Amino acid sequence: MSKLVIVGTVAFDAIETPFGKTGKILGGAATYIGLAASQFKTDGAIVSIVGGDFPEENLEMLKDKGMNLSGLEIVKEGKTFFWSGKYHNDMNTRDTLITDLNVLADFEPKVPQDYIDAEVVMLGNLHPLVQLGVIEQMNDPKLIVLDTMNFWMDSALEDLMKVIAKVDVITINDEEARQLSGEYSLVKAAHKIMEMGPDYVVIKKGEHGALLFGDDDVFFAPAMPLREVFDPTGAGDTFAGGFTGYLAKTGDYSYTNMKNAIINGSALASFCVEKFGPERLLNLSNKEVYERIQQFKSLTQFDIKLT
Amino acid sequence: MSKLVIVGTVAFDAIETPFGKTGKILGGAATYIGLAASQFKTDGAIVSIVGGDFPEENLEMLKDKGMNLSGLEIVKEGKTFFWSGKYHNDMNTRDTLITDLNVLADFEPKVPQDYIDAEVVMLGNLHPLVQLGVIEQMNDPKLIVLDTMNFWMDSALEDLMKVIAKVDVITINDEEARQLSGEYSLVKAAHKIMEMGPDYVVIKKGEHGALLFGDDDVFFAPAMPLREVFDPTGAGDTFAGGFTGYLAKTGDYSYTNMKNAIINGSALASFCVEKFGPERLLNLSNKEVYERIQQFKSLTQFDIKLT
Repeated sequence: MSKLVIVGTVAFDAIETPFGKTGKILGGAATYIGLAASQFKTDGAIVSIVGGDFPEENLEMLKDKGMNLSGLEIVKEGKTFFWSGKYHNDMNTRDTLITDLNVLADFEPKVPQDYIDAEVVMLGNLHPLVQLGVIEQMNDPKLIVLDTMNFWMDSALEDLMKVIAKVDVITINDEEARQLSGEYSLVKAAHKIMEMGPDYVVIKKGEHGALLFGDDDVFFAPAMPLREVFDPTGAGDTFAGGFTGYLAKTGDYSYTNMKNAIINGSALASFCVEKFGPERLLNLSNKEVYERIQQFKSLTQFDIKLT
Repeated sequence: MSKLVIVGTVAFDAIETPFGKTGKILGGAATYIGLAASQFKTDGAIVSIVGGDFPEENLEMLKDKGMNLSGLEIVKEGKTFFWSGKYHNDMNTRDTLITDLNVLADFEPKVPQDYIDAEVVMLGNLHPLVQLGVIEQMNDPKLIVLDTMNFWMDSALEDLMKVIAKVDVITINDEEARQLSGEYSLVKAAHKIMEMGPDYVVIKKGEHGALLFGDDDVFFAPAMPLREVFDPTGAGDTFAGGFTGYLAKTGDYSYTNMKNAIINGSALASFCVEKFGPERLLNLSNKEVYERIQQFKSLTQFDIKLT
């Protein structure tokens, strides 16, 4: 069991999907990553910032899940980061309605002293300079995983490239991989991105699954075909949390074990979309996760007798 | 080894992709289906129609591949069906530039007497009434597989529904499954389509792979991530030909064996897109196919030790 440092937003979200609409609910990349990683009883610390309006009960819930919150700064007089979005009918595209940075505008991450020796670092989607600040505080971690998005490619590419050069794994979606590399073919895109620094590239394709590239190898994890995707918010972060949580738990950062980590991440993400926000992750039994992983196995298993 | 009846177009295509442009080359659903099925040394008969302009060498090539052509009508004074299309940069969408039905306009399919007892029938994309005409000539086949497209849903839905009611397997793409069922979720779409007649639904997602639905089970075959998709023309038909060719060869029409058939279809389709038209299928060794299937295995294989 290795320690895991998670940096990312802890936030309020307001979400509208074809199935309904929420008020301000718990959200944020670090929240989803932490909840997913906690499924493996990982020793994880969340490095983030919230305002005085952030409910004590949410803090307690994250602590109950085993998350260390000594790196979660609380600005009493400030307001928590707020995001509001509306999904289109296809659930693959969404409009951002509101982004109130609030306390996030001046966030300077501080990794707790107990965690600067952590083996695994998960850099959730944030400004690249914040991600860089976390890397600089760490004492030679074995695995740094980066999540980012097109917004930073458009607005802070130079800083982003500095982060990319320092990480072992990057997780981005297919369109972002194409934008970052200038290549349409995902195989070519992944190899170009590996030249920028990472040894492994994970390309997330939403309902179409995820690809793991490393050297000349490629692994594909399908998404579970679901009767209903209720709310995709946080699915990518949940995937990242399952991925890093599993790797931290096992302490094995080989390509072979990354395949297992990706299946775990996919399984957790498939739960996340079943309800609004992080609700489905709050009470998820090991048995449910185990059964979902079995379903992933039977989803792709075949036995051709080559004659 | 069972007999296989293939109905579909045998045609000329002119194709433009970002990689280049062809003149009139060999094309047509039945051509691709036949070439793919021939990889399994299937005893297949092509039921189709061409004009006097169709080159003798193409007929010889199909015969050399083991295809029975006694059901391929040649209208000496007529012209062969011609399709021309241009692919967009993403290779997933295309514009049809020309569709000259020519002899296809009056096509009345005739299944050769030697093949009316065939166990497997592959209905390639054509007017539903032509597909129905083939079913009516058959003597109780064990497996009827239907390929169709949105064009017939728009223009001949009533006839199409009659065909769908009579087949065992339908293969359509994701958008067509949504259109036919009125359901966005592919899981729901597949179950609605099963209520229309078929026991199994194969949903083709192009570069995102294919799903096989049957009863409460679902199987996913990934597409092979490729450095380059050179020309997608015929990939769906090649998939269908590999699927039915493998089933006819093994004579096993169980759900379990359909999984293997889908992997074989996906493997052959992954070759088809590597060159213009059917070129790559013309000289494809068993060794190459074997190795590609091994790659499909390693693409999705994982081994999680649940602790």
